[in-house]
Amino acid sequence: MLSSSLEAVRLVVAEPPPGADLDTVELPCVFGDAITALRRAIVGTEPDLVVATGQGGSRPDITVERVAINLDDAIGADNAGNQRTDTPIVPDGPTAYFTTLPIKRCVAAIQEAGIPATISHTAGTFLCNHIAYGLAHLIATEFPRLRGGFVHIPFTPAQAAEREKRPSMASATAAEALRVLITAALEDLRDDRLPVEAGAGNGSKSWLSRKIRK
Amino acid sequence: MLSSSLEAVRLVVAEPPPGADLDTVELPCVFGDAITALRRAIVGTEPDLVVATGQGGSRPDITVERVAINLDDAIGADNAGNQRTDTPIVPDGPTAYFTTLPIKRCVAAIQEAGIPATISHTAGTFLCNHIAYGLAHLIATEFPRLRGGFVHIPFTPAQAAEREKRPSMASATAAEALRVLITAALEDLRDDRLPVEAGAGNGSKSWLSRKIRK
Amino acid sequence: MLSSSLEAVRLVVAEPPPGADLDTVELPCVFGDAITALRRAIVGTEPDLVVATGQGGSRPDITVERVAINLDDAIGADNAGNQRTDTPIVPDGPTAYFTTLPIKRCVAAIQEAGIPATISHTAGTFLCNHIAYGLAHLIATEFPRLRGGFVHIPFTPAQAAEREKRPSMASATAAEALRVLITAALEDLRDDRLPVEAGAGNGSKSWLSRKIRK
Amino acid sequence: MLSSSLEAVRLVVAEPPPGADLDTVELPCVFGDAITALRRAIVGTEPDLVVATGQGGSRPDITVERVAINLDDAIGADNAGNQRTDTPIVPDGPTAYFTTLPIKRCVAAIQEAGIPATISHTAGTFLCNHIAYGLAHLIATEFPRLRGGFVHIPFTPAQAAEREKRPSMASATAAEALRVLITAALEDLRDDRLPVEAGAGNGSKSWLSRKIRK
Repeated sequence: MLSSSLEAVRLVVAEPPPGADLDTVELPCVFGDAITALRRAIVGTEPDLVVATGQGGSRPDITVERVAINLDDAIGADNAGNQRTDTPIVPDGPTAYFTTLPIKRCVAAIQEAGIPATISHTAGTFLCNHIAYGLAHLIATEFPRLRGGFVHIPFTPAQAAEREKRPSMASATAAEALRVLITAALEDLRDDRLPVEAGAGNGSKSWLSRKIRK
Repeated sequence: MLSSSLEAVRLVVAEPPPGADLDTVELPCVFGDAITALRRAIVGTEPDLVVATGQGGSRPDITVERVAINLDDAIGADNAGNQRTDTPIVPDGPTAYFTTLPIKRCVAAIQEAGIPATISHTAGTFLCNHIAYGLAHLIATEFPRLRGGFVHIPFTPAQAAEREKRPSMASATAAEALRVLITAALEDLRDDRLPVEAGAGNGSKSWLSRKIRK
Repeated sequence: MLSSSLEAVRLVVAEPPPGADLDTVELPCVFGDAITALRRAIVGTEPDLVVATGQGGSRPDITVERVAINLDDAIGADNAGNQRTDTPIVPDGPTAYFTTLPIKRCVAAIQEAGIPATISHTAGTFLCNHIAYGLAHLIATEFPRLRGGFVHIPFTPAQAAEREKRPSMASATAAEALRVLITAALEDLRDDRLPVEAGAGNGSKSWLSRKIRK
Repeated sequence: MLSSSLEAVRLVVAEPPPGADLDTVELPCVFGDAITALRRAIVGTEPDLVVATGQGGSRPDITVERVAINLDDAIGADNAGNQRTDTPIVPDGPTAYFTTLPIKRCVAAIQEAGIPATISHTAGTFLCNHIAYGLAHLIATEFPRLRGGFVHIPFTPAQAAEREKRPSMASATAAEALRVLITAALEDLRDDRLPVEAGAGNGSKSWLSRKIRK
């Protein structure tokens, strides 16, 4: 069964938010490789905005991550069989990064669209946080004009139907939340940059990555 | 904002399950009057199946009620301002009724359609249980060939967006669950009745009631 | 590890509520046998009040059951390996019984003692409901002056420590809740019976049963 | 009603863990002042270990915080009426600190003592995180030999009794968890320091702070 994150991103690709020149990439669910693939995609497409997504199985709503921490600490293995416990993602990297997404504007826009969303202060210590930290570190060290962050998507109804009493969200709803978030983040980016970049075109490039498990 | 139950039923009416001759009625959210209106509708349309629906705000999935108890016990008032505490719905009525819906078949069918659903053993002690008990009592005392039961629908995403960390379900998903449930219940009804009713037409009449708050 | 119900009852036995002549019995966690053992104990000790207890693992508070239904429907087997699906507890018995405990008085007294408690409208469809129904049926058919009901006890902290993010309650707290419940129920019983039974002694006999799994 | 954190700390003070020379201070629930009072107490008593505690109302278990972030972002005001939104705790301070408590050893010890506990990756963005960050910043910048962290305590049963369906923990249980945590942290500190500090006495000084609301 497809992850909820992958299902939602496919619907966004099929019907992107207006005014966004959207590209996507599937990141391997492998420590290290995920960030390498993410960096390669950023270099290749030079986006203004990166929205990484992952599955947040027990969460009832869209959660936009505010913080990513420099820590891999997982009970299970990644898709290549690697186990990481109490390991920094970037040795000598800072303890944490705040997202560069305008999260309050994004969450408010999603709620106004009639979709439940909140800010989250932890993305866990597995691949989701790994990608969130990796993205923030790339922005801080290599791509200072880029903005980006990580969004958790609840289970799909089909995933919840196989479990006991878990909340879920239709992929169409989650996809609409991602569209609204991208639009809000691009607006914020333009609001913020226009004084500096008078004359900039309005065709901002946005970009979604999604973590997948094999 | 419309109740999740009303939204879902409207979508079922707009696109009914195949082979079902569907009628609907909105029941007043008033003790006593709700059951009177339900009885009038049953008399008027002579359905084979009645599926009553209501909003189950904190529930993450479709819940099909198995039991209705002879008790009104509410903190708040109904839409006519009536307050009922520790009051039997039908004086001298039995303590409880089991539903006449084939609930296991219905829940399995909904889950197989990729929508989370479970059996519930309490519909509470407010209007939802009131209608569930009233329907079961009408079946037991006046309409012995009728089958029916009560289904709780989670909040819509828009309702959840106004609250904190509540689970929700898209109305399109809830509506599909109701279609699947009606189809499964009508199939069961035919399976059950065919030996007895050889020659009966296949156009079973089904019927949805929904509780609404003003 | 002892069940939370057994731990709490042992503490009540060690320090019973004042004025209560308390007896206890451990019921086998076996369909049918549990009720037989319960009946034998009632015949042997002639109590005024029976409070049956069981473990309600996912519940955060003391829950006093209001309703017991005539249904065994379990996924797992009982301690004798019996599996029951969609089976009445008492063939031709009523669909349900309301408890004869003064549940609102009991819940209010527990809350006033600073312990979280609520009324519950379902004891499930496994041994807890089986015993609750069996007790109510014995009262209705053989022991009309007896009062009794069923109380669910949350996990102990030690049980929760072995699981993920489950609520728990210290056995000392649960035991105090049972003492307060017994006292409130006996007071109610005296209030109710005194006009009829002028001259009755004040040493009401109360009685706890507890379901145990091997 | 006393906060659960204050109740638990009082019990620890009344019966400290063996071998710990324990001191306590109540921190004002005021942004800035809380950290000032904490610093003053550290200067005055020169502890080896500081365990700050606060109330985590909706949590079912003892949660030991792993991360504190440089952010005050509260809907409500503190006890002096200050409101802080999107404000750094320490301007130019790092985004976050990891705790210097041996959290896995502490959580394992609490669980082995039969009390539910987990690691938490967010202390929120109100006073609890404020104190956790302030403590970590003091350790990083002024008291490099000190260790410390923050622990969230669930509601007491009495607090949960006034709310709906909230988990709780008896103060005696929470106090025992704090004793076990202090003992484990001091052992870890000795294990870690002994090679360096051969001949050090065994009377490590530990120390509890607790946030209180007026």
